[in-house]
Amino acid sequence: MTARLATFRWVPPFAEGFVRDHRVRWAHEEAGVPYELELIGMEDRQSADYRTWQPFGQVPAWRDGELSLFESGAIVLHLARKSEALAPPDEAGFARVQAWVVAALNSVEPHVQNFAALDSFHAGTSWVEGYRPVAEGLLRGRLAALEAWLAGRDYLEGRFTAADIVLSTVLRDLEASGILSDFPAVEAYWRRCETRPAWKRALAAQLQTFRDNAPAG
Amino acid sequence: MTARLATFRWVPPFAEGFVRDHRVRWAHEEAGVPYELELIGMEDRQSADYRTWQPFGQVPAWRDGELSLFESGAIVLHLARKSEALAPPDEAGFARVQAWVVAALNSVEPHVQNFAALDSFHAGTSWVEGYRPVAEGLLRGRLAALEAWLAGRDYLEGRFTAADIVLSTVLRDLEASGILSDFPAVEAYWRRCETRPAWKRALAAQLQTFRDNAPAG
Repeated sequence: MTARLATFRWVPPFAEGFVRDHRVRWAHEEAGVPYELELIGMEDRQSADYRTWQPFGQVPAWRDGELSLFESGAIVLHLARKSEALAPPDEAGFARVQAWVVAALNSVEPHVQNFAALDSFHAGTSWVEGYRPVAEGLLRGRLAALEAWLAGRDYLEGRFTAADIVLSTVLRDLEASGILSDFPAVEAYWRRCETRPAWKRALAAQLQTFRDNAPAG
Repeated sequence: MTARLATFRWVPPFAEGFVRDHRVRWAHEEAGVPYELELIGMEDRQSADYRTWQPFGQVPAWRDGELSLFESGAIVLHLARKSEALAPPDEAGFARVQAWVVAALNSVEPHVQNFAALDSFHAGTSWVEGYRPVAEGLLRGRLAALEAWLAGRDYLEGRFTAADIVLSTVLRDLEASGILSDFPAVEAYWRRCETRPAWKRALAAQLQTFRDNAPAG
């Protein structure tokens, strides 16, 4: 049975290419495992039916036969358990990948999102300039730690793994801000990730879905 | 060989009981697996040596023989892989637990932390009142989703698992705010978790460590 990936039928242009299904598509591409799409509308986010699959009404969600999953990071970890292209198969090697996936999602992404939202969702609101130095300081602390770790390494754990899928897609939300130019090893790392053919195929597939389903007019 | 858990020797009173090693101690207690402590000082957070173990200089970190791990969520997942007390042993059952662990860390905790910080770390600063409705609105959305999921369930996946260790410790940081009284199924859920004997033993162990190492005076 082919796995099914739930994502939006269409999103507004500012979100194109940044929907979190990119992580899961990319993992499928690296692993060489096919998937089919299950397209939902923004209105489905609130439906009780979709919430039994994705309790927070977000995308992506994913299912394979009887198993339904949600959270892009968890779907990528599940795929990694079954593909040596995504993680070493031994328990210790897998646990290291898992540690970096959790770090990307819990120690890095919250600070990236708080900072990136200042100039997108919250641009121009009164409290943004007061909060900016706080959010930027916390983010810079995490980026400095990554800079130290990535100096001299091509990927987080030497070879490419699922952890690089998660961390590099987290970092990509900083591209517009220019802040990564202060962290050259981190910037080189994410550029290295985005040149992977599977990254490009996954992004192209997401954009194609939105083109195919763009509202008329 | 006994696993070693790195945590702080001592923290100021406001942090007592809330250091993230509680999650890992609790998982060890539920699984019945012993651990030893490796106590560090605040100054060790910046040391190159500790950062090879915990790249962000946080606690906890954990090691077992040759395997060094970091991130409380990842350590709990690793322990869950080896203990049926923490997760079903089949791949599908484990993947569901993993999905909830990631959801707690990535879809819930960032909003809990942003909201809880308003009245702790950032109390009294100029931008807090402008940001409060934004942070509270995002948090309430996530708590409403949890309320719908937990209605009629004792634990996230029916039986107690590692996912409950992670989510309930995330929710605990909301206790002082009183916001959980608007979400009765969520509040009952975390009270259910904190009455577990292993939860209490883990908390008592953390508090004992800080008492044993309190500065003189």
